[in-house]
Amino acid sequence: MSNVISFQNRDLEDPLEYLTRAAIRDYQKGQVIYGCEQPAAGIYLIIDGKVKLDRRTDAGRQVILDIYHHDEFFGESAFVKSAAIAEYAVAMCSVKLMMWTIAEIQETVARRPMLALALMQLIIKRNMDFGDRIEGFAVDPIDRRLVRCLIHFSERLGIRTENGLVEMMPLTHELLAQYVGTSREIMTHYMNIFRRRQYLNYSRKSIRLNPDLLRELLGQDCGHDLVAKGAA
Amino acid sequence: MSNVISFQNRDLEDPLEYLTRAAIRDYQKGQVIYGCEQPAAGIYLIIDGKVKLDRRTDAGRQVILDIYHHDEFFGESAFVKSAAIAEYAVAMCSVKLMMWTIAEIQETVARRPMLALALMQLIIKRNMDFGDRIEGFAVDPIDRRLVRCLIHFSERLGIRTENGLVEMMPLTHELLAQYVGTSREIMTHYMNIFRRRQYLNYSRKSIRLNPDLLRELLGQDCGHDLVAKGAA
Repeated sequence: MSNVISFQNRDLEDPLEYLTRAAIRDYQKGQVIYGCEQPAAGIYLIIDGKVKLDRRTDAGRQVILDIYHHDEFFGESAFVKSAAIAEYAVAMCSVKLMMWTIAEIQETVARRPMLALALMQLIIKRNMDFGDRIEGFAVDPIDRRLVRCLIHFSERLGIRTENGLVEMMPLTHELLAQYVGTSREIMTHYMNIFRRRQYLNYSRKSIRLNPDLLRELLGQDCGHDLVAKGAA
Repeated sequence: MSNVISFQNRDLEDPLEYLTRAAIRDYQKGQVIYGCEQPAAGIYLIIDGKVKLDRRTDAGRQVILDIYHHDEFFGESAFVKSAAIAEYAVAMCSVKLMMWTIAEIQETVARRPMLALALMQLIIKRNMDFGDRIEGFAVDPIDRRLVRCLIHFSERLGIRTENGLVEMMPLTHELLAQYVGTSREIMTHYMNIFRRRQYLNYSRKSIRLNPDLLRELLGQDCGHDLVAKGAA
């Protein structure tokens, strides 16, 4: 059919091609964009800055689902109204967003159906990433989960510099622990070992690492601890 | 706009309202519907039977993502062509499916955009379930993960019987272990304790449990082991 645009031969379709500009909204570092008390109003697009998506448990613990940055969407849970989950989106720095309500998205989709397919593709990709994460939790010890976490964030948030190194924003050991599912203390223990072995380098300003080296490391020790117990 | 059907006031939209019948495909117990060697051909709908979705690691371990049954869709990863993941869909019994290729879905969406929104909603819901699972892995010990797993499957696959009990298909300790992320032996250990405490009852034919009791249990011991070490 001639009126059907195929996206099978492209990698990922871009929803932005089908959306019109919305007003810019500003958020300060630490500001909650949505959460339990104030659910997501629609789908958000990051124009500038970084947004942390997390879950909060009844016992007050946080679990990081992911970090999103410029040109990425979040807030899709607004599409499922029955959602009674403690999901929070928080500005990690000064953030600029655009937002489209579910009604606006529906209206656009009625005219431009490809928008829905593009959004769907994006959410499926996210779903597969979550599947990777579940797989990691089910089979990997903490050090391997940390390596996967560092590869994930460096691919998503980093910039390639000289010698195959990738530089990315500083991520606190607390935040890494909330992603990997362990304590801050254990995270610091492993980050120190990784630094000593020159897998990475970090300061208050950035983390620098070699994702190819980390990937190699995962391949070598398939299914085993990377760091022998007590090898600090 | 009058031509926009709102689904915000309904719980979940049904993609089936927008799809036309496809040919029925039969699968035998244990048959691979798709996997690494033969990727998903499109989106599948289960007419009859149960399908297990799993990941396989290089070290040969399996991780269960979920089990789907009649009137449920799976195979959405076909929408993201770059997907190089070891995801398998396997018939758990004799299974009847319908399948629509990505091109067929696109063609239908061009005429009936609500199909894309309905599918999107379904995938977002699945995404939120995966988020729950990640949260559980990050903060819960094995016995609490097992309780969540049993609640999840009883809600999705079970039938309510007398006295608030739910009866569902038998799930092997091996399969439960692959969902919870532990060994078969540890799973058997906890299932025995749960049976002794009358949280559930199981045979080769079915599992019977009281989901309300299990939910209460989770609420009581928030953040702690349900089963004291060595309390077998």
